Amino acid sequence: MWFMRQAGRYLPEYRALRANKNGFLDMAYDPVAACEVTMQPIRRFHMDAAILFSDILVVPHALGQHLEFVPGVGPKLEALETANDISRLSFNKIHDVLDPVYGTVANVRAALRDEGFDDVALIGFAGSPWTVATYMIEGGSSRDFMKTKHMAYSDPQGFGAIIDLLVEATAEYLTAQVDAGAEALQLFDSWSSALDADQFQKWSVEPTKKIVDLLKAKHPEIPVIGFPKGAGVNYISYIAQTGVDAVGLDSAVPTRWAAEHLQPKLPVQGNLDPFSLYAGGEAMDLAITQILDDLSGGPFVFNLGHGTNKDTPIAHVERAVELVKNYRVKK
Amino acid sequence: MWFMRQAGRYLPEYRALRANKNGFLDMAYDPVAACEVTMQPIRRFHMDAAILFSDILVVPHALGQHLEFVPGVGPKLEALETANDISRLSFNKIHDVLDPVYGTVANVRAALRDEGFDDVALIGFAGSPWTVATYMIEGGSSRDFMKTKHMAYSDPQGFGAIIDLLVEATAEYLTAQVDAGAEALQLFDSWSSALDADQFQKWSVEPTKKIVDLLKAKHPEIPVIGFPKGAGVNYISYIAQTGVDAVGLDSAVPTRWAAEHLQPKLPVQGNLDPFSLYAGGEAMDLAITQILDDLSGGPFVFNLGHGTNKDTPIAHVERAVELVKNYRVKK
Repeated sequence: MWFMRQAGRYLPEYRALRANKNGFLDMAYDPVAACEVTMQPIRRFHMDAAILFSDILVVPHALGQHLEFVPGVGPKLEALETANDISRLSFNKIHDVLDPVYGTVANVRAALRDEGFDDVALIGFAGSPWTVATYMIEGGSSRDFMKTKHMAYSDPQGFGAIIDLLVEATAEYLTAQVDAGAEALQLFDSWSSALDADQFQKWSVEPTKKIVDLLKAKHPEIPVIGFPKGAGVNYISYIAQTGVDAVGLDSAVPTRWAAEHLQPKLPVQGNLDPFSLYAGGEAMDLAITQILDDLSGGPFVFNLGHGTNKDTPIAHVERAVELVKNYRVKK
Repeated sequence: MWFMRQAGRYLPEYRALRANKNGFLDMAYDPVAACEVTMQPIRRFHMDAAILFSDILVVPHALGQHLEFVPGVGPKLEALETANDISRLSFNKIHDVLDPVYGTVANVRAALRDEGFDDVALIGFAGSPWTVATYMIEGGSSRDFMKTKHMAYSDPQGFGAIIDLLVEATAEYLTAQVDAGAEALQLFDSWSSALDADQFQKWSVEPTKKIVDLLKAKHPEIPVIGFPKGAGVNYISYIAQTGVDAVGLDSAVPTRWAAEHLQPKLPVQGNLDPFSLYAGGEAMDLAITQILDDLSGGPFVFNLGHGTNKDTPIAHVERAVELVKNYRVKK
């Protein structure tokens, strides 16, 4: 069990640390602060895994794209207007920029050992190329991904060059996370839902497969969890073709369907609605028990279907952890 | 064949008419202007169906919720802060407010006959309760539906009262559209994707079934097309349980999967990505042909997977219509 965005604003100790930093990137690139933040939910809840505190947009940042996090708005990037604009980017210095992240990984690994959490796994992560590309082309968050989808349809070669650059950079970045101490990796394809089935094949499945192949060539022992959020029926092709070792389920995936169609092929992870956690109460207890009943018969990692909401009461997280830890698999 | 949002801003004749009106609602409540706009794509492309020009938010407006369309922003409503705020709403006058919409339906029916489009069906529509409720509670468009989901989880009874009110009003509204001349109906559940499988059952499937039952009691002959956009795997429970006569597929539904799992049970409609239409070219031709190859072996209505993009070149629509009209089903 672990929770996406288990380190974050719903924790007072996070907010206290964040108040002393000069914005989000300042914290993400500080190996001491980012390690501390990563450790906070482990100390509180003894989750089974720590997930590196960072952001998927450090990769375009490391490629040379201007990035800032505007409070109350979100990430702002200097948008790529056309595919030619990748000439502004450069692969050469990514490790210079990302070095503090590797430092965080190493620090967390040491902290887990030093603080007696030898049973806690350390998960590294990155964004999938499609999802990261949407931010690079829209210049930030988007509702409809208009510019990205237009480029993908009208200039598939140029868009493919952006995706290829991200495949290379992401594989390098994740490999370096493993070298620094990450024991598993998750690939977040948060905006899979925007792709039709053919485009999903082209811009999610194929790039993910390339990244997994590159990773496995160097670290065959490291499990990779793919999370094609909102992929719906396309979860089927995703698990059949990408080579991921496990798959994260968003909350819309019916757990009984996943038990029948996905879990026989690989471990599944998920998928409590973060809004259920936020609301708590008996409904949350029932939702958690239902998920456990449906999925604990096979290889399963309990998680949310999306990141923890910033207003989630800590007592609800405590209750969820207690329920999962005390659950006994029905025979 | 018809296209969602086939009447709209990509047409110069629409923009010309719109320029003379005092905002979107002024046009939607003008039976002459709304009829004219509904007819425009029929005259240009001879689509097989005309879809009433209106908006899903006229129902909360008719219930007494303040509504305006802010240019460049979208709809703004006086948000319901808690479920108790439905005491501000009233069922009694909905037909007074919605009467111009029924006038539009009658006008379109007459225009189709008068202009020689006897083969063109007239489709009425409404939003599904869940989707309409998100606007009523968020006060407009939303990215994450935070307030709505929080209310649905933390006050399911109160939220259920809002949904029940919308069920009644929507059934009344659609029945009146049929009385005025609509020959088929579509229910747009545009934000289905935000619901986990249990909540989808509760807030999409069950209310839809109630509306369909109410409609069928009065007009058993009128087909109802359900469109649970982004429902993914939950399309299965939706078609099994709601009683809809046909189902609209968003672009993420793989057409071969739909041919195997949905189309044997009911007619399907969809699902060209509007961004493919926007981009055009050979890729669009291939995408259209693929959809036709996969789905024309069974009962099928060609459509988009979402509304027509406002910047779509008219030549692309012409090309798409030509391809679909000239397609011959493979034996």
